[in-house]
Amino acid sequence: MNSYSSKLVESAVNELARLPGIGKKTALRLVLHLLKKEENTALALGNSLIKLRNEIMFCNECFNISDSEVCEICSNQKRIKETICVVEDIRDVMAIENTGQYNGIYHILGGIISPMDGIGPNDLHIDSLVKRVNQGNVNEIIMALSTTIEGDTTNFYIYKKLKDFNLTISTIARGIAIGDELEYADEVTLGRSILNRMPYESTLSK
Amino acid sequence: MNSYSSKLVESAVNELARLPGIGKKTALRLVLHLLKKEENTALALGNSLIKLRNEIMFCNECFNISDSEVCEICSNQKRIKETICVVEDIRDVMAIENTGQYNGIYHILGGIISPMDGIGPNDLHIDSLVKRVNQGNVNEIIMALSTTIEGDTTNFYIYKKLKDFNLTISTIARGIAIGDELEYADEVTLGRSILNRMPYESTLSK
Repeated sequence: MNSYSSKLVESAVNELARLPGIGKKTALRLVLHLLKKEENTALALGNSLIKLRNEIMFCNECFNISDSEVCEICSNQKRIKETICVVEDIRDVMAIENTGQYNGIYHILGGIISPMDGIGPNDLHIDSLVKRVNQGNVNEIIMALSTTIEGDTTNFYIYKKLKDFNLTISTIARGIAIGDELEYADEVTLGRSILNRMPYESTLSK
Repeated sequence: MNSYSSKLVESAVNELARLPGIGKKTALRLVLHLLKKEENTALALGNSLIKLRNEIMFCNECFNISDSEVCEICSNQKRIKETICVVEDIRDVMAIENTGQYNGIYHILGGIISPMDGIGPNDLHIDSLVKRVNQGNVNEIIMALSTTIEGDTTNFYIYKKLKDFNLTISTIARGIAIGDELEYADEVTLGRSILNRMPYESTLSK
C-alpha cells in the first residue's frame, strides 16, 4: 500500500504541504478535517483558490491587489497623489491603512531585494516606481520597508535611483516602539534612537 | 475600501481561515504566497481539494479512506482477518502500519466519544464494528485509542457492546515510553506501570 491508502489524499496532502509553514503532518490533519466537514467546506476552499488565481488583478498604477484595473486607493479622489508610500506587499498597505494616519497613495514592490532568496531589483516593481516619479507630480516618496538588512538594501537601491529627481525621500521613523521598556530594547535600536533624537515638542499631542 | 482591497483575496482568506490552526493572518500569508508562485500552484491545490472531496471513498469494511470500495488492507490476502484493531482515524492506521508489527485488519471509528465536542457513539462507526463481530470469524479486538479520558470512555463503551461475544478484547500496552526517564514520567502513568508490571522475560528480544 502507499502510505496514505488513497492517491486522492496523497495528492491533496502534497499540494497543501507546499504552502509555507505547512508540513506533511499538518497537511494530513487539514485533509482529514476537510473530509469530516460537510462537502461544501472543501469545495468552497478549492473553488476560491482557483478563482483567486484565475481572476486576480493588480492595480496598473501601484500594483496593489485589486478587483479592477485601478485599485480603490489610486482611484480615490480624496487621496493625495503627490505622496507615494513604498511598501513590500499588500499586508503593509493594510497595516498602514489601519493606522488611519496616511492619506497618500502606495507603490507595492512585491518583495524586497534579497540575494539569499534569489530576489534581485529586476524581480520587483522598481522600474515602474521610477517611471511614476518621472511622469512628475510626485513630491515625496516614503520608504516603508522592514528595518532589516534586506529592507535597508532595498531602501538604498531605490534612493540611488530617485535621488536626482526633485523630491523628498523619507523613511518611516525608527526607534523604541511605543509601550516598550528601555531595558529590553536591542542595542542598535537604542543607539540609533539616541543619535536620531527628536524635539520633545514634536511628540506632543499625537 | 474593504480591508483586503480585493473580494477574491477576502474570500480565499476566509475559506483558508476556516481550517483548524489557521487564522486570518496566516491565511493572508498563504494567499500572497499563492499569488507570488506560478499560476499552477494555486490551481493544483484547488483542484486536488475539489477532487479529494468529490471522489474520496471509504472502505466498506473498515471505513479506511480508500480509492476503491474495499481498501488495500482489507483486500490483502496476507492480512489476518480474525484480528481487528480499532483506531480513531487513518493517521493511527498509518502510524501502526509504520511499526511493521501488526498483520491484522482495522476498524476506523472516525473519531472518539467526546461530549464536549458534541460527538456521541452514534456519530462513530461503532454499530458497524458490532456487525462485523456479529458476522463471526473475529477472535480478537485490539483497542488502540488515545490514552485520554475520551479514549477511555470510548474503550469502555465498545467493551460493553462486545463483552458478550466470544472474543478477546485487549488494549495497547500503557506505560513508560521507551527512552523516557522515570523522573519525568507523570504520576498516573508511573503508578499504572507499576501496577501493571510485566514479566521481564517478555521484554527481551523485542
